[in-house]
Amino acid sequence: MKAANTCNRIVIFLFGGSFPGLSLLGFAVSILSVISVQGHVKDTSRYVLVIHRGAGAITNASMTPEKERLYRAGLDSALQAGYRILEQGGTALDAVETSIKIMEDDSLFNAGRGAVFTNAGRNELDASIMDGATLAAGAVAGVTTIKNPISAARAVMERSPHVMMAGQGAEQFAAASGCEGVDQRWFFTHDKWMSLQKLKLADSIKLLERQKGGKSRSQWRGTNDEKYGTVGAVALDMHGNLAAATSTGGMTNKRFGRIGDSPVIGAGTYADNNTCAVSCTGWGEYFIRLVMAKTVADRMELAKETLDDAATEMIMKRLPALGGDGGLIAVDKVGNHVMVFNTAGMYRAIKKSDGTTGIYLYK
Amino acid sequence: MKAANTCNRIVIFLFGGSFPGLSLLGFAVSILSVISVQGHVKDTSRYVLVIHRGAGAITNASMTPEKERLYRAGLDSALQAGYRILEQGGTALDAVETSIKIMEDDSLFNAGRGAVFTNAGRNELDASIMDGATLAAGAVAGVTTIKNPISAARAVMERSPHVMMAGQGAEQFAAASGCEGVDQRWFFTHDKWMSLQKLKLADSIKLLERQKGGKSRSQWRGTNDEKYGTVGAVALDMHGNLAAATSTGGMTNKRFGRIGDSPVIGAGTYADNNTCAVSCTGWGEYFIRLVMAKTVADRMELAKETLDDAATEMIMKRLPALGGDGGLIAVDKVGNHVMVFNTAGMYRAIKKSDGTTGIYLYK
Repeated sequence: MKAANTCNRIVIFLFGGSFPGLSLLGFAVSILSVISVQGHVKDTSRYVLVIHRGAGAITNASMTPEKERLYRAGLDSALQAGYRILEQGGTALDAVETSIKIMEDDSLFNAGRGAVFTNAGRNELDASIMDGATLAAGAVAGVTTIKNPISAARAVMERSPHVMMAGQGAEQFAAASGCEGVDQRWFFTHDKWMSLQKLKLADSIKLLERQKGGKSRSQWRGTNDEKYGTVGAVALDMHGNLAAATSTGGMTNKRFGRIGDSPVIGAGTYADNNTCAVSCTGWGEYFIRLVMAKTVADRMELAKETLDDAATEMIMKRLPALGGDGGLIAVDKVGNHVMVFNTAGMYRAIKKSDGTTGIYLYK
Repeated sequence: MKAANTCNRIVIFLFGGSFPGLSLLGFAVSILSVISVQGHVKDTSRYVLVIHRGAGAITNASMTPEKERLYRAGLDSALQAGYRILEQGGTALDAVETSIKIMEDDSLFNAGRGAVFTNAGRNELDASIMDGATLAAGAVAGVTTIKNPISAARAVMERSPHVMMAGQGAEQFAAASGCEGVDQRWFFTHDKWMSLQKLKLADSIKLLERQKGGKSRSQWRGTNDEKYGTVGAVALDMHGNLAAATSTGGMTNKRFGRIGDSPVIGAGTYADNNTCAVSCTGWGEYFIRLVMAKTVADRMELAKETLDDAATEMIMKRLPALGGDGGLIAVDKVGNHVMVFNTAGMYRAIKKSDGTTGIYLYK
């Protein structure tokens, strides 16, 4: 646990239960249950983890029972691993990094191992992480040889004076920081490779049709499945700290070193103990232009909106008004959460210390 | 002039002066002086341009009269060129791009031609631009062969579906879009090269001292002059449109493909016709963590603060509270401007249609 400002440490003792019936054990638990750390109330009974693996044109119709089972299992394993950390008194930062790493290692998800292919047939990955306690943040963009980009982002945050690093420089730093490197072959998955080929075929057919002077009538539109593929996690730990993290393999067939919102602090990821932790997924360009994650936090701080109102305004009104789509997950400093999207689906899962738990794919 | 939403076009006629004494010419001018474009009141009598070339440890003591004359002349030429566009009814977007291009071509400024050197002895440039009328935005990061990165950023905004491109991909796109390419030698300036050598020497001496086990007592700290070098421009045009742009050569001796705040929409640059246009300069990592530019806009929209209050709160309180320093320039939708910094100096210049004009280097 990091103490950003130890001058703010104050200890508050709250007594629970009625005195006469209080056992020694109960008394000790009551004392321990609420302790202020970093100016926040430590509440061992309140912690939350929410994760997502992207919003998009995901409908029940495009899913087989076997695929659905795999997606649910993947989400569940990431959720449980992160939650265990919170349950054992670990930090929100460790919880979100752990959940993301598991999704990065799962070839089903468009992040880490399952990253989609660029137009050049490569995998370029982006990730970012932010610590709500200190506003420290780290991000990597366009990395190609790092097994877990989210851990590289955390290394940038904790072991460098910088927030954002890109390309080969980021890879060199990650290697020097002890992040595990892999060959590009690590990221090869048959499904994602075929998605690229389909999109390229669709492009060729469109080009041919355009050259013939006619309107494109091709049915080969490829699939939007991977356009919005991103994984994210937000958490509130029992020390009152918030953290957010996002990781992505980008857009299938992307060109020109495009950077989406995932590694952009303020757009795809933001966390501030005073308001909330947010991770976004969707059409990245619109999330950058709206500075989505920070604006949700600002609406809470400056307009005194609830997390739900702030996120709903941004995702259901401002985002479509500009022509974009997608969704976000967020948790606020008292444990309220939101999972909101204006697409057909968003794969998401939640587990809270109050017993709330669930894995959802569609609306 | 781009009309983002022509459905919003309405024409308002306002009559000035007393009817009996109104000449035909005066009548025509009155009619033309206030016309709504894109839902905003066109006011041919109100336009503003503010530019900066970075905040930092710039003091009167470190300046020679000859250097000061050159800096003032460089600022003035960028200011006048951008202002002429506004005066002639051009757009805020054209004005900020023009001013930035002139500063990029001036080897005095740490942007474009005068970019500082990375640890590897290269020049890696970043830039971003945003149109307050449409919230369209474009940015390039880590480009090495583009003469005017700000024009590449504008090409990303206008000729691609993306907002942010990095490295070689961005260079390929810029070339395909007709942006002028140059050899890395274009960026070579003796002063900036010597700054790198001094910083490297300082690093070597510090390392030697550390290896001897003693504390570093070296006086060879290099210079902070170029640490905060960035150029920026914000404008309000007579059509009621705001625009912001920022360009930088980064930090001398930077490593690992570090990306600062300049190409990050929301951090270094933001513009929204509903609030303000902002361009930042300073210790980029803190500006990213605070999402500086967008937060100033949000404070106006959500907390109903004035531009001055919003910018002052962020630069004079939030930024130093986190340990950062720097400044920003901004103009709001009714033409109020701010040039605020918590460093010893910020090179800046302003020209307004109400006659306000000035070039300033220090406090």
